[in-house]
Amino acid sequence: MRIVIVGGVAGGASAAARARRVNADAEIIILEKGPVVSFANCGLPYHVGGEIQDRGKLLVATPDLFWNRFRIEVRVQNEVVSIDREAKTIAIVEHSAEHPGGHRSELSYDRLILATGSQPTTPPQLQPLPSNAFHLWTLNDMDQIMSFIADHAPKSAVVIGGGFVGLEVAEQLHHRQMNVTLIDRSPQVLQPIDRLFAKIIEEHLESKGIRLVLNAFLSNVVKKVDRATDVELADGRSIPTDLLIVGAGVRPRISLAEQAGLTIGSHGGVVVNEHMQSSDPDIYAVGDIVELHHGVTGQLARIPLAGSANRGGRIAGEHAARGQSDPMGSILGTAIVRVFDLTAACTGLNESALKSKGIEYRSAIIQAASHASYYPGAQSMQLKVLYSPFDGRILGAQAVGGEGVDKRIDVIATAIHFGGTVRQLAQLDLAYAPPYGSAKDPVHMVAFAACNDLDSAPTLIEPTALLDGKQVVDVRTQRERQQLPLPNAIAIEIDQFAERWTELDPNLPTVVVCHSGKRAHIGACWLRNKGFKNVSNLTGGMSMRSMDAS
Amino acid sequence: MRIVIVGGVAGGASAAARARRVNADAEIIILEKGPVVSFANCGLPYHVGGEIQDRGKLLVATPDLFWNRFRIEVRVQNEVVSIDREAKTIAIVEHSAEHPGGHRSELSYDRLILATGSQPTTPPQLQPLPSNAFHLWTLNDMDQIMSFIADHAPKSAVVIGGGFVGLEVAEQLHHRQMNVTLIDRSPQVLQPIDRLFAKIIEEHLESKGIRLVLNAFLSNVVKKVDRATDVELADGRSIPTDLLIVGAGVRPRISLAEQAGLTIGSHGGVVVNEHMQSSDPDIYAVGDIVELHHGVTGQLARIPLAGSANRGGRIAGEHAARGQSDPMGSILGTAIVRVFDLTAACTGLNESALKSKGIEYRSAIIQAASHASYYPGAQSMQLKVLYSPFDGRILGAQAVGGEGVDKRIDVIATAIHFGGTVRQLAQLDLAYAPPYGSAKDPVHMVAFAACNDLDSAPTLIEPTALLDGKQVVDVRTQRERQQLPLPNAIAIEIDQFAERWTELDPNLPTVVVCHSGKRAHIGACWLRNKGFKNVSNLTGGMSMRSMDAS
Repeated sequence: MRIVIVGGVAGGASAAARARRVNADAEIIILEKGPVVSFANCGLPYHVGGEIQDRGKLLVATPDLFWNRFRIEVRVQNEVVSIDREAKTIAIVEHSAEHPGGHRSELSYDRLILATGSQPTTPPQLQPLPSNAFHLWTLNDMDQIMSFIADHAPKSAVVIGGGFVGLEVAEQLHHRQMNVTLIDRSPQVLQPIDRLFAKIIEEHLESKGIRLVLNAFLSNVVKKVDRATDVELADGRSIPTDLLIVGAGVRPRISLAEQAGLTIGSHGGVVVNEHMQSSDPDIYAVGDIVELHHGVTGQLARIPLAGSANRGGRIAGEHAARGQSDPMGSILGTAIVRVFDLTAACTGLNESALKSKGIEYRSAIIQAASHASYYPGAQSMQLKVLYSPFDGRILGAQAVGGEGVDKRIDVIATAIHFGGTVRQLAQLDLAYAPPYGSAKDPVHMVAFAACNDLDSAPTLIEPTALLDGKQVVDVRTQRERQQLPLPNAIAIEIDQFAERWTELDPNLPTVVVCHSGKRAHIGACWLRNKGFKNVSNLTGGMSMRSMDAS
Repeated sequence: MRIVIVGGVAGGASAAARARRVNADAEIIILEKGPVVSFANCGLPYHVGGEIQDRGKLLVATPDLFWNRFRIEVRVQNEVVSIDREAKTIAIVEHSAEHPGGHRSELSYDRLILATGSQPTTPPQLQPLPSNAFHLWTLNDMDQIMSFIADHAPKSAVVIGGGFVGLEVAEQLHHRQMNVTLIDRSPQVLQPIDRLFAKIIEEHLESKGIRLVLNAFLSNVVKKVDRATDVELADGRSIPTDLLIVGAGVRPRISLAEQAGLTIGSHGGVVVNEHMQSSDPDIYAVGDIVELHHGVTGQLARIPLAGSANRGGRIAGEHAARGQSDPMGSILGTAIVRVFDLTAACTGLNESALKSKGIEYRSAIIQAASHASYYPGAQSMQLKVLYSPFDGRILGAQAVGGEGVDKRIDVIATAIHFGGTVRQLAQLDLAYAPPYGSAKDPVHMVAFAACNDLDSAPTLIEPTALLDGKQVVDVRTQRERQQLPLPNAIAIEIDQFAERWTELDPNLPTVVVCHSGKRAHIGACWLRNKGFKNVSNLTGGMSMRSMDAS
């Protein structure tokens, strides 16, 4: 049996290695269009910035290793140009010094695994790419950027695109002493994260000296010969730059799958079953090019991330090589990025995704310390959970902060995988010692807030809620009120609340506010239990509301 | 309605605060036997060692704060000595300067919450406690130790007990420049962790200069006047010391519950329902004194840990104050400790617990990096999962290593909470970026190993398995073999395996071994697929087997 894998990087190498584990006799061939069969694509920005000094570390596995260890044949510079499903053959063009025009050949397969990945998109204003503009998608891209920096010592850079990779690149270029401007056409960075959380990251970027230009529509790129000198925006602004990095999104490489007539889903990806088989059972697809079931919606989604690419590759390889495998399982879009001193992470759906799908939700936001606050080094995080108002099922979560953001999102992602509710989240028995967490972990605290909300004790309202016409009670200290003023609020500090709550009108709709929502919860509970009819707590408090400025 | 809470530290403060949240009118009184209503008991060792400099940080909440913020009355130095369930009254003895002999009074209750916690045990050889011997259980204990160190500048210390707190204390006294000897009567430290994992911690302690004496039965303590000078062991060894810390276990303070005739379970704890009500529905119990349902066995267990004490307190407070609450949920004994540069953590049951309960299990061990190994700063961890051979249900997990041990144990604890299997663990969609993890996280890797084992592809055997009479194949490099020799093994490096496997006898039971089990898996798969009848992989490899020395 011959198993042919198209593409090494995006799940292909995983598929090949797994196929060999379960089948010692199959012939296994990886055809890779590029010059390198497998490299750490998530590491590229860090080599540009110098955090990963040794380029060799990015080379995950060489053709020699594949052959010696696994008896897997690797053919680089081999581009698969078409599939003949009836004949079960593929047409290949090999690019080499011998055959500069490309050498055509054919190869038969018993099972074919497509792991062709994505390719970066280029805005029309940047076509053709100026000589100082680069994607950062392949090792070759990275090498070109490194050479350009070495040769031209650029003083300024514009990064187009405020997604995960765009933010990583902006930080790394900043480490290389450039004046970095990050532009994005949307009103915020990091689309999978809700606006106020993204705002925390935006302020952090600006505090580090990154210039951020949002709602930025590229209108023109001014060039001197083939070199970009200025990026012009639709609103008339112009940004001079020595270097341009284009991180404006990627699209799946599905032309092979399309040509072969495989079923393509509504999200533009190959439709596969739980064993990663496409509509042709002898052709598998993995990685960025496939649509998988989303664990929250149960619907198909295409979310190009390394984790599911690797897990999917493993399953495809196993099934191709022995006709059976465990099922793939669902995806949640769990993702994380480090931005200077902060970490942002998310899992499941965010508010805009929930709205667009018409899924009703509620949300709770807390501010918490990464570990017991009496133990040195605790770092603050904001943690948000989105949940169903009907049964408390967890729909998504986001966190921004220091240490331990990754842990909380992974725990909640695990709970979502099992269809967990916020009530179950509140019950988790998590590991506690002062250097690692708190007896009531941030995961518990956000779950408690959500459970209280579901029990209407009292109800949470969004940090950005309109407060006009409501009795707003500010339970913060005077110092806090001066630092972040909340106009038109009645100030009653929480430690005077039991004394002074009688100053309030029980018949007015009332909102209690503090810095993070914790003390406000105490005050709001008090009022509700004293018979106030309509009491709510501004979730996330002023720490979130203040993110809603301009 | 009057809610009386006996004990502030072990869940009592949580109960009181939650009761107030759901009921603004109830009279809530905390009676605390000691001088301080609530303090961070898990932080005590770190103040002794100087990591937490400011003693004030350990004081979680003062009586003033309880009153001003919550209208909760706190009476310290108030010991509850008996309960009259019929009359619904308690007898109190107040200790104060005014009443040195103790002032007796009575108080009625509508709901009573017992949060009396544990008290440390003292071996008979140390009764009465010498003047230089201390527990480390209360703030007062801590203060006494601090004074003793300040006054006497001890050069050596003996810590009795190698549990979580014993290890923390040993490290902190070492930070204070003492020669520290840690003694324990059992053959290993950290009972909830399996022997070879505990051994990693033991070697680390010794590498830091802690002297470890295991299987150490205290026979006598030599005293000069009231001061201990030498600790004598049953085997004749004698350890001179300037300071003794007794961390030889705790027992629940259940005398009040016993006196009141509440049902006590077979583990010596108060039996409660899911709302933390004892056999008397007006009396609740929380914290170290209760037995709760264990999430793996479904049976009652008593595991005194801060997390479940706090969560239980919250539930008892809510139910006492309004007659309803969410259920407590199960416990898993999830625990964690930092020991110098390492972290050890566990959840669920370990091997000895599974054996004693007659639960069949299998185990998989991996060695993995905390994050992508090409990104700087990755630290190694050993991760073990225990699972059912029948359905793959996760029964427990342990990890020892650097960064990220806490995250992996919390993720697995979450999966156990939902009754998850190792196959589900392999499907989790976890957050990946190079600084935080790998595209295949250690959680996935250990789950993959377990799934392979369940699929018999090939079967894992324990690191300590007898290898006599088996064909043992060592796939490590020559250098690795020299560093940690494995006698009587046939050496075939993994990258020559596809070439040289024919040198092996397919009819012999065969064990493949490498450093961590990863390369051995490749070799073992190869042999099995080539028709070898009986192939296994030494799980955890030489890195674990070498822990089984002496």
